[in-house]
Parts: sequence; structure tokens; C-alpha cells
Amino acid sequence: MLYERENPHGGDIYRQPVRLDFSVNTNPLGPPPGVIRAVESSAQLLDRYPDPCCRDLVGALAAYEGVPERFILCGCGAAELIFSYCGALRPGKALELAPTFSEYAAALEAFGCQVERYALEEEIGFALTEKFLDTLEQTECEVVFLCSPNNPTGRLTDPGLLAEACEICLRRGLRLFVDECFLELSDGGRSASLADQLERFPGLFLLKAFTKSYAMAGLRLGYCLCGDGALLEAMGRLTQPWNVSVPAQAAGLAALEEGAYLARARTLIGRERPLLAAGLTALGLTVCPSQANYLLLKSPVELAGPLLEQGILIRSCANYHGLGPGWYRAAVRGPEENEELLMALASIL
Amino acid sequence: MLYERENPHGGDIYRQPVRLDFSVNTNPLGPPPGVIRAVESSAQLLDRYPDPCCRDLVGALAAYEGVPERFILCGCGAAELIFSYCGALRPGKALELAPTFSEYAAALEAFGCQVERYALEEEIGFALTEKFLDTLEQTECEVVFLCSPNNPTGRLTDPGLLAEACEICLRRGLRLFVDECFLELSDGGRSASLADQLERFPGLFLLKAFTKSYAMAGLRLGYCLCGDGALLEAMGRLTQPWNVSVPAQAAGLAALEEGAYLARARTLIGRERPLLAAGLTALGLTVCPSQANYLLLKSPVELAGPLLEQGILIRSCANYHGLGPGWYRAAVRGPEENEELLMALASIL
Repeated sequence: MLYERENPHGGDIYRQPVRLDFSVNTNPLGPPPGVIRAVESSAQLLDRYPDPCCRDLVGALAAYEGVPERFILCGCGAAELIFSYCGALRPGKALELAPTFSEYAAALEAFGCQVERYALEEEIGFALTEKFLDTLEQTECEVVFLCSPNNPTGRLTDPGLLAEACEICLRRGLRLFVDECFLELSDGGRSASLADQLERFPGLFLLKAFTKSYAMAGLRLGYCLCGDGALLEAMGRLTQPWNVSVPAQAAGLAALEEGAYLARARTLIGRERPLLAAGLTALGLTVCPSQANYLLLKSPVELAGPLLEQGILIRSCANYHGLGPGWYRAAVRGPEENEELLMALASIL
Repeated sequence: MLYERENPHGGDIYRQPVRLDFSVNTNPLGPPPGVIRAVESSAQLLDRYPDPCCRDLVGALAAYEGVPERFILCGCGAAELIFSYCGALRPGKALELAPTFSEYAAALEAFGCQVERYALEEEIGFALTEKFLDTLEQTECEVVFLCSPNNPTGRLTDPGLLAEACEICLRRGLRLFVDECFLELSDGGRSASLADQLERFPGLFLLKAFTKSYAMAGLRLGYCLCGDGALLEAMGRLTQPWNVSVPAQAAGLAALEEGAYLARARTLIGRERPLLAAGLTALGLTVCPSQANYLLLKSPVELAGPLLEQGILIRSCANYHGLGPGWYRAAVRGPEENEELLMALASIL
């Protein structure tokens, strides 16, 4: 009997045979060739410990993000940074959206934090509205978790609303954690990032990942941007010194050289998403309006099991707060794969 | 200015140009070719999330270690497991040796634990003796950390003494953490492991790593063995779901196929260690008797700076509890490299 670690997310293609994986939201172009080459070359450097300071990578990220190097901390995937953030802060109470990515609450609860939830409304496609600002004005939570575009809804937060949320948090002394892991693959790319607010608002924390943008989920590389040096230091103390592997650091450096790659991916996603959404709607499914590289959908019948029989994996969203049975998330992939998904669904529905 | 993460260990070859690295204690044979090939091949699978349960690797480890699969948890290097162990247990007080590997205390203190130290005596080469059993009989610490062979002394603990320590901890309800990360490269290999005690003593926790044995420090892969399933589950909750990367899992599987490789390494180390020790002694240095793949030595003059000028890195042990200025650790490497170290030292001393 295996000690069965729970995998509450998509991408568990190891338990069953999977031909097409729509359960993870990585770049449909796959990893850039330069990243693959960098990992192959790094196989010659396995006996070295990784640079615990990720010096080269941090230097390249500072240039890419336009922030000082001291604002940057790298981690073993964005997921590790969520854990060390919660471990370093140990807030008594935190506010998150519902539905949203479940690792915030998992990490918060692992460190004894109470989680309050702001319910997004299905009727308006789970969009975040001005009403949320009233909650921010009144909340007794010390930390607020946002995700833009939100996972699993695919909704980008309106930039004006986000700016106002920043102001309120800054004024009220609340910390604001914004997960921008899917921003690079969303409409407008990182033009919607809050990175330019970091200098004036040290309580702002931005989570970033290579995982999705460059389709390198297997390598584990994320980073965060924050002007609060003491927080980054405390997070560093909570993790081991060599958390970012040699192949991951090499791959990250190579990825940042891939200038046009993200724009190409956004073009592909921008073309395919409406086609996939229209196909799903035509099959009788309800599709949440998305600005990201994935779609949240509602079905009158069970989909995941029957799809898996055809070797296709989608993400059941039944266990999300604010969702329930009948909700699923599917990635936007290339035209042939999306067509296969639609055909498989047609055979079920 | 870079957010400068502290690296209190060896292996930081990124800050300065290093030709020969004696500061890390990895297998002098380097990574096995099969491991390098496995990492190269895994570059084609970067877009997959890793298996959060490491199913294939855990299966292979269970066969290799002769323990049930449910006794095994993999981590992003042994270092991560030290942190999640301390985070899951949060002992009030823990006992460790002095000197010993500094990450136990770093992790314990990160979780608010008080660390007591049992002083090993320089006069007897920092060997652990029966006196330690008296301390175990009386200690109010909830957890005891041992390291065998100890780092940085290279001393293996006598098997009879270790068995008695187990008995006392079992009887008194103390947890016993034994770091066996260097065991495979030490005299006798893993015949000295406590793995056969796991079934009867669920408070026993054994730390293992691929890092040293297979010279794959850059990949980050460690594991632990423990009969306390609730502890392993709690440790799993404190880390992200995908902490062990795709290349690391592939490399671990490949490493376990390398039957004769560790025996070859032990033969090389067993031949080279006395030669290196004799050479160091002839130069006027005091060398601690070692059964491992590294040597602790004491010098009347500063060595690390002058060696670095010649591109050679050794580990200063000045910051270890129980040691101080003048103490250094050097790995046992291949004959040419060891000769180079001796020649460089001769030019300094």
C-alpha cells in the first residue's frame, strides 16, 4: 500500500492512462526548444549544488520585470512560495475569493490560519465587482488573496478595480497577495501586472511562475516580487537553501531569452478560445467568459469519467468552494486537440 | 543589490571561480551515466506536472530498502524533509550533537524550537560514546537528532551504541531522527542502517538522499523512512504537492538501477582516504579519524582563502557549534584531485 499523497489538482496523469491532458493549463505551444536544450545541457552539471541565491536568474528576472533584484525570490514552483509566504506571515485570518485556486487555503490552514471567503457570483460569470471594495474596507483579515486571471474562472480583474483594491489595502495596512501566474498567457499579457505598484506598496506580493507560461511544470520554478525585504528573508529561512534545482535555473534563464514565444502563445489562445467556447456552448454546456488559457464550464451530466474512458483528462471543479458537482475546467490547447475534446464530448452529451 | 540568501554550507561555486570543489561531499565518481541519460530524456516531458505521489520511485525504493511503501516519503532534497519534519512536529526542545550538520538547528529554530547540544569531544576524535546514553536517559528533549556518519566529523556511530540509543528512545517515548545521507559512501555502506528497526519503533525517522550517493546535488532528491504514517502525512501537508521534479524522479529511478556503482565508489574512497589523510598529517594538519567520504581537519593557519586563490574550495567549519576557526572539511575525491589539493596545501603551509 502506497502512502497516497493527495493530489487535489489537475495533471495527475500517473494514476491512469491519459492521451490528452486538458486538466492542466500550461502553454499549448509546449516548452520552447531553448528550454529543452538548457535542461539537456544541465544534465552535465548534476553533481553541483544549485546556486542558493539563483544569482544569474534573479539578475535576468530583474531586467525582465523592471524591478530591483532585492524584490525577487525564486522558489521550487509557485506552490512552494505560497507555503513559505503563509509560513513566514502566519496570519490569523485571511480573505480569499470563492472559487479560486485551492493551494492558498491549503497553505494557510497548514499554518493554523482561518480562511474567510468572498463569494463570486455565478450570475455575472464570477466577475469581481466594486462590491468587493466594500468588503476590503471592512474586513478584519490581515491578508487578502487575489488571483488574476482567477483560477478556475479565467476572469481577469478590471485594472481600475485592482488599483482601487491596492489603495484600500495600503491605506488600511492589509497585505495583498496577487497570483499573476496565468497573466502572461491571458489577454493583454503582463501589461495588467501590478509590478509598478511594488515600490510604493511593500505589502503587495506578486506570485509568478514559469510553469504555465513556458509549459515547464515538471521542473518546478516560480518566483515572487515584493518590496518587503524582511518578508522575503523570512520566507527564505523557511525553505532549504537549495530549493531551485540546477535544471530549473538553467531553464528559467533560457525561457527569458524566448522573446516572441509568449506573444505567439497568446495569439494561438486568442484564436482558439472562442472556437472552443462556441463548440462547448453548442453542445449545451454553460461556459464562463474567460480572458485566460482555460475555460470554466458547467454540465448537466458527469463528464470527467466518460472522457477519461476516451483517454482525455479534464479538471473536475466539484471540490472548489463556490462551485460543486457539474463544474469542470478545460485548458485551451491547439486546434486539433480542442477539436478532439469537442468530438469526445459530443459522443457523451 | 541582490537579495542575498545566506548559504552557510559548501558548494557555493557561483560567487567565485572554482576549479576544484572539495567543499561538497558527493560521490567522487560523479553521476552515473544512466542518471545523466535519464535527465536528458526527461527534458522531453517538461510540460507534465510531476507525479505528486512519486509512485514509481516509491515502489523502487521500497524494493531497494526492504520496507513497505507506506514508510517512504520523497522530498526536494533531504534538506526539504528536515524542514517539513520540524514543521510537522514542532517540538518544544530538541537535542543534537555538536558539531553536526547545521540544517537541523536551522529548521528547528525556524519553527520556534529550542535546541540543546551534546558536545562531542575533540580529544577522542568527536566519537559518540556510551556517555551519550546517560544524556538520553535524562533529557527532556522530545526529539533527538543523530547523524551517522556524522557531518562534518566523518565518524560512524558504533552499531551497538546506536541500537541502545534506539531502545532508550523507544522506552522513553522520544523521537529519534537519524541522518543516514552519507551512509552509502561510508565504510560498510548501508549495512549499518537502522532500517530494520522501523517496524518496531515508529518514532524512528531515517533521512536518506540521492544527492551524495549518486552525485546529483543539482537535482534535489531525498527521501525518508518512517513507520509513523501520520507524521509522513503531516509532512506532506506542509509541502506543495509537486515538490519532486520530473527530472529528479527519473534520475532517482535510474540511480537505483546502478547496482555496482556505490560499491565501486566505496572502494575508491577506502583507497584514497588514508592516502589523503596521511598527506594532510604529513603537512602538519590534525585529521579526525573518518569512516566517510570526507575529512575534518584542523590547521594552525587559515586555509580557505589561500586555497581559493588557487581555485580550490574547501569548507570552513568555523561556524559549527563545537568547532571554530582553524577547522575545515575536505571531501575525498579521485587520486589526481586529492594530489592537487595536497600540493596546493604544501605551497601554503
